[in-house]
Amino acid sequence: MESNRIIHSCTNFPSTGNQGRWNCDYVFLLTVNNPVFCTFMFWTSVLLLKMMMMTLLTAYKRFRNKAFPNQEDLRFRSAPEVTFGNPNVERARRAHRNDLENIIPHLVISILYIALDPNPLAAKVLFRLYALIRITHTFVYAFCAVPQPTRAITFFIGYGITVYMAFYILVVTFLSL
Amino acid sequence: MESNRIIHSCTNFPSTGNQGRWNCDYVFLLTVNNPVFCTFMFWTSVLLLKMMMMTLLTAYKRFRNKAFPNQEDLRFRSAPEVTFGNPNVERARRAHRNDLENIIPHLVISILYIALDPNPLAAKVLFRLYALIRITHTFVYAFCAVPQPTRAITFFIGYGITVYMAFYILVVTFLSL
Amino acid sequence: MESNRIIHSCTNFPSTGNQGRWNCDYVFLLTVNNPVFCTFMFWTSVLLLKMMMMTLLTAYKRFRNKAFPNQEDLRFRSAPEVTFGNPNVERARRAHRNDLENIIPHLVISILYIALDPNPLAAKVLFRLYALIRITHTFVYAFCAVPQPTRAITFFIGYGITVYMAFYILVVTFLSL
Repeated sequence: MESNRIIHSCTNFPSTGNQGRWNCDYVFLLTVNNPVFCTFMFWTSVLLLKMMMMTLLTAYKRFRNKAFPNQEDLRFRSAPEVTFGNPNVERARRAHRNDLENIIPHLVISILYIALDPNPLAAKVLFRLYALIRITHTFVYAFCAVPQPTRAITFFIGYGITVYMAFYILVVTFLSL
Repeated sequence: MESNRIIHSCTNFPSTGNQGRWNCDYVFLLTVNNPVFCTFMFWTSVLLLKMMMMTLLTAYKRFRNKAFPNQEDLRFRSAPEVTFGNPNVERARRAHRNDLENIIPHLVISILYIALDPNPLAAKVLFRLYALIRITHTFVYAFCAVPQPTRAITFFIGYGITVYMAFYILVVTFLSL
Repeated sequence: MESNRIIHSCTNFPSTGNQGRWNCDYVFLLTVNNPVFCTFMFWTSVLLLKMMMMTLLTAYKRFRNKAFPNQEDLRFRSAPEVTFGNPNVERARRAHRNDLENIIPHLVISILYIALDPNPLAAKVLFRLYALIRITHTFVYAFCAVPQPTRAITFFIGYGITVYMAFYILVVTFLSL
């Protein structure tokens, strides 16, 4: 990993002398040559596949409850009329929206976080923890509702990870605001 | 394109010997020098412009139906009171939300997919097909409702493309989980 | 910044002769060595933190109005039953959704815009203006509703910035469609 270090600052420009050497460092951060980026890629795929599965869950619940929002969908199950606000469907949609509101910003923040070359172990642990905690959040929200504050705790752990990364970026790039 | 190949693995670190050579490869993947990334940039702009047009469509339908959700918006059309759940407005909003739930994850997945240096032709075809299929999806959802399963088919083609890319990433980066 | 210029085209491939030199250019665009990217990172963190704060605002209003959408949330405030459509809660949620629909696409477009090496000053001004205008939008939407068209103006300034960037990308990468 030594060849992967960079100075945490946005003001140091490579002297033309060792420019080639500098590039060796930077180029690794957002490539498969950076183990941190690889771990991020793996867990990002897991998280986004999980998030996209929420669409199927919503569709399943729409079929199960014959609650279709569009006229042209009714023929699927010969439902009498369009239905809105079915509690089972809405729960899945809320869980899905919660993912949109939290996972997408987390992924953008994570890419910038990686570009700042954080401590590799810390970054990997955060990515893995976030993925697992969000999967738990979905489970206790959309599949098996457990008494609060279980869901609130899982939510705030993930929330805290993203906020930490965001502040890390703020501090490191503060001079370039 | 030869100078654009990299080995599909997250474990091979460049030997210090040919480090400069290696960098030549990686640096191209997320730059305008990678034709695949250029094609991605073009179709991403098209898709996001299409997605943002949904905001204008929703606004248009709010004006058309005098269905404003905020007190301060009423003066626009001297609407008597705030209105919710207007079917025309809600259809546009559902189409917009469907874009958010599918296009945004697709773009994140695509960037990681490009970083893994996929087959250039395959990647370009997937990006073009996805953009065209999502434009069709919006047309049959928000503009001209046609009998199902037309919309379902367009949805699942795009869905399948994103899932394929996600699994491609999972397989390639599996060793770094 | 001279060492940061690249030719705005997706068709020019580096001759093997000055390949090392070329990499020196490209590698800077999405690294902390590119001041434009640093400015982007700072304001992206600000924007996403703001956006995630909307979740807390919604939660606060749910507690304030005892308007919880899930059965298991009722015990938080011993609310009698699940409630939907509380105007204060819905206003916060609309402001949040507006952020999702505009900020996320803007960030994806911005990364591609940076990868095309735009004029550094122009790019920095656009990033700063966008962040400030979106913060204003949230203020006049979710915190202190002012008469229209104030909110509409703040919305369309941000909207225009993203559309400009998207067309910039379309033009530069047109040959790779």
